[in-house]
Amino acid sequence: MEDLFGGIIRENTSVLAAFSGGPDSVYLLYLLKEYKKHCPFDLKAAHLHHGLRETADRDMAFAKDICNRWDVPLIVERADVLAYARENKLGTEEAGRELRYDFFRRNKAPSGLIALAHHLDDQVETMLLRLIRGTGLKGMEGMKVLEGDLFRPLLAMTKEEILSALAEKNIPYVVDETNLEPTYSRNRVRLSIVPEAEAINPAFRRAMASFRTMAEEDESYLAREAEKIYEALGAEEKGIVTLASDVFRAPDALRRRAFRLAVEKVKGHVKNMGYDHIAAIDELEQAQTGKGLDLPGLRVEKTYGGIAFFVPEEEGPSEGEAALNEGRAEFMGHRFYLGEGDDFIYVKDPSAVVIRTRRPGDVIRLKVGHKKVKDVFIDAKIDRRRRDRWPIVTEAGEVVWVVGLRKAERQEEKSWQKLAWIPLNEM
Amino acid sequence: MEDLFGGIIRENTSVLAAFSGGPDSVYLLYLLKEYKKHCPFDLKAAHLHHGLRETADRDMAFAKDICNRWDVPLIVERADVLAYARENKLGTEEAGRELRYDFFRRNKAPSGLIALAHHLDDQVETMLLRLIRGTGLKGMEGMKVLEGDLFRPLLAMTKEEILSALAEKNIPYVVDETNLEPTYSRNRVRLSIVPEAEAINPAFRRAMASFRTMAEEDESYLAREAEKIYEALGAEEKGIVTLASDVFRAPDALRRRAFRLAVEKVKGHVKNMGYDHIAAIDELEQAQTGKGLDLPGLRVEKTYGGIAFFVPEEEGPSEGEAALNEGRAEFMGHRFYLGEGDDFIYVKDPSAVVIRTRRPGDVIRLKVGHKKVKDVFIDAKIDRRRRDRWPIVTEAGEVVWVVGLRKAERQEEKSWQKLAWIPLNEM
Repeated sequence: MEDLFGGIIRENTSVLAAFSGGPDSVYLLYLLKEYKKHCPFDLKAAHLHHGLRETADRDMAFAKDICNRWDVPLIVERADVLAYARENKLGTEEAGRELRYDFFRRNKAPSGLIALAHHLDDQVETMLLRLIRGTGLKGMEGMKVLEGDLFRPLLAMTKEEILSALAEKNIPYVVDETNLEPTYSRNRVRLSIVPEAEAINPAFRRAMASFRTMAEEDESYLAREAEKIYEALGAEEKGIVTLASDVFRAPDALRRRAFRLAVEKVKGHVKNMGYDHIAAIDELEQAQTGKGLDLPGLRVEKTYGGIAFFVPEEEGPSEGEAALNEGRAEFMGHRFYLGEGDDFIYVKDPSAVVIRTRRPGDVIRLKVGHKKVKDVFIDAKIDRRRRDRWPIVTEAGEVVWVVGLRKAERQEEKSWQKLAWIPLNEM
Repeated sequence: MEDLFGGIIRENTSVLAAFSGGPDSVYLLYLLKEYKKHCPFDLKAAHLHHGLRETADRDMAFAKDICNRWDVPLIVERADVLAYARENKLGTEEAGRELRYDFFRRNKAPSGLIALAHHLDDQVETMLLRLIRGTGLKGMEGMKVLEGDLFRPLLAMTKEEILSALAEKNIPYVVDETNLEPTYSRNRVRLSIVPEAEAINPAFRRAMASFRTMAEEDESYLAREAEKIYEALGAEEKGIVTLASDVFRAPDALRRRAFRLAVEKVKGHVKNMGYDHIAAIDELEQAQTGKGLDLPGLRVEKTYGGIAFFVPEEEGPSEGEAALNEGRAEFMGHRFYLGEGDDFIYVKDPSAVVIRTRRPGDVIRLKVGHKKVKDVFIDAKIDRRRRDRWPIVTEAGEVVWVVGLRKAERQEEKSWQKLAWIPLNEM
């Protein structure tokens, strides 16, 4: 266990173990309480009663029983995942996760860790999802063993290994009732893609684990080198970040990362910035001083001695807007595309479609008259924080879909195309 | 077309275009003959009559007709793919590829290029196959536009884009009859994994293309930096490569690549060297002088001032042998594993299984008596070159399977386990 916990859990560490009662979390808690014999640290378990099925009571009773037997203090709380999911228009898996993490963070020690039982099978799914949705080397680092206050000691073990360790030691667990409906995408990866890959290579998950280790080694070196370049060539003043033009002499791998660091400095994040956006900045090397480039929520301009990154005042595509590009758009963690899907509307002219967040005065057409979008949100009990990020589809300036809540009444014609929506809100 | 061919095809370049008559190769030849109007270069097409189906005659006639119309000299040759596949125990796809490449190389100009019509769909399949089988960043560079004498100008286009370009320009083609049976693994990727991934992200192939570009940028920088380290710290003498111990101070990403460069220098290749093998070399940092590590076909030893890489005389696991590790082994481009598969034998004790190439005196048990393995090869018309790489499964020292050719007659018992085999010989 030294190799699982050593260097991370010390005598003064506080650990709150997420404890559903399912096999993964039981095995994690077992290892933690065993490790405590060698290295006394502060260990508590935390169980959220999801209020979901009849089995939730059974799971809670089981959690209490095990913690009692193992002499681990247990914190229990009740939540109504279904109601929270309904209120916030979330999938039950996502709702469950939000409530769990909130519960854990409220109950852990200020500088303590939350121990999570994610294993290699989860890791492989996460890596594949990122690869499929679009990522770079950084995304292929997957989940980290230590990530902020989250600690995942079991990441290198497969589910199968966990189950056989439990069987060998004769440790009881409940069947994973807390695995709420996985999202559409994760389900496809778990039930179709991983088994297909294992039919090609029975050691597929191990191969992904090695790939991940190499990705982490490579990315951490590249990130360090890029930071050196940023520190040597970057300057920040009044919300404007400039990079001296020597940045164009850096190798592609480092220049691209230095651009990302500049974007992150200006905007606080690099969401919505794909490879093509970052690569487009290179065109400024040959541009005249004062010429520039509009990226989502960002302007990049050629200056006398380099390039400047800043948030534009008014002009340029706002971050609160996305148009379809090749029939597709991503917006605030949602994907829209022309084609088949579970949820969709018909649009007449895809090139006139803009997806954005709410604006004062927004209305949506009913059979007779209009309704304020604000009232649509109020009826659905969407809180203010969520309203600011809620996607609204407009066509030719008219609100046609408050996504997931209300579609405009329009005379659709045969020639119109389906615009489908998938939520991407998933860890 | 400047962006497809510019910088690679010049006035003095000789290009031999692989030309099956299928849509991809027709579009490639079309672009090449159009480009010739701007930049006169030496263009020939090459068509191999596979002798496989009735349609092969039709394809050949079509190829001749198009080349005649487009005024491109055409080289045609006939081959018997089925016979070659049978003789060499290859799949028809692999046999077809071997014969085609041999044909192209015999007919291209000495310093000329072979233009191939691989497109983004092929590229995505290749990347996924490598990821599934186990690879690092280098493998995720995928196929390169220019790789030795192979030139693949269409790698950034999807099959769909090629088909619509052909439709738009009203260019005829034959239906891809030369797409011989794809291998088991590629078929699974093409028919199951890619469609599942596209159900999650309709822009999946574009996402893979961006990932590939980034992988190439990152890998080329890392490879250059590792070469600098190798040049600064490496020395070669009498087949022994040494790296000074400063190599242990290099970042993981570069040290691991410097080790690979040393292995490649000593052995001529880095096949059979997985991440774990390379990472194990790190343990030598703390070892006593003279202590060492046996890797497949390689010995690495701590010396006074660093580490030495060399091919061992006799000791250590020979490259011609593989034992099962966690129920699996890879050997000379073949994979063996305990479990279900199309082709398999029963083994009594997996830990006694060794897979190796032929040795003088090898015999295999028949119902009555034995047969020389040499005669098994002769009967199957396997040439000497292939015999040296042919996998032979032994259990407790006895030859039990000349893979694909002959199994030993043994009294199998219920408790015995299936050892399955998949060939990995695929580009």
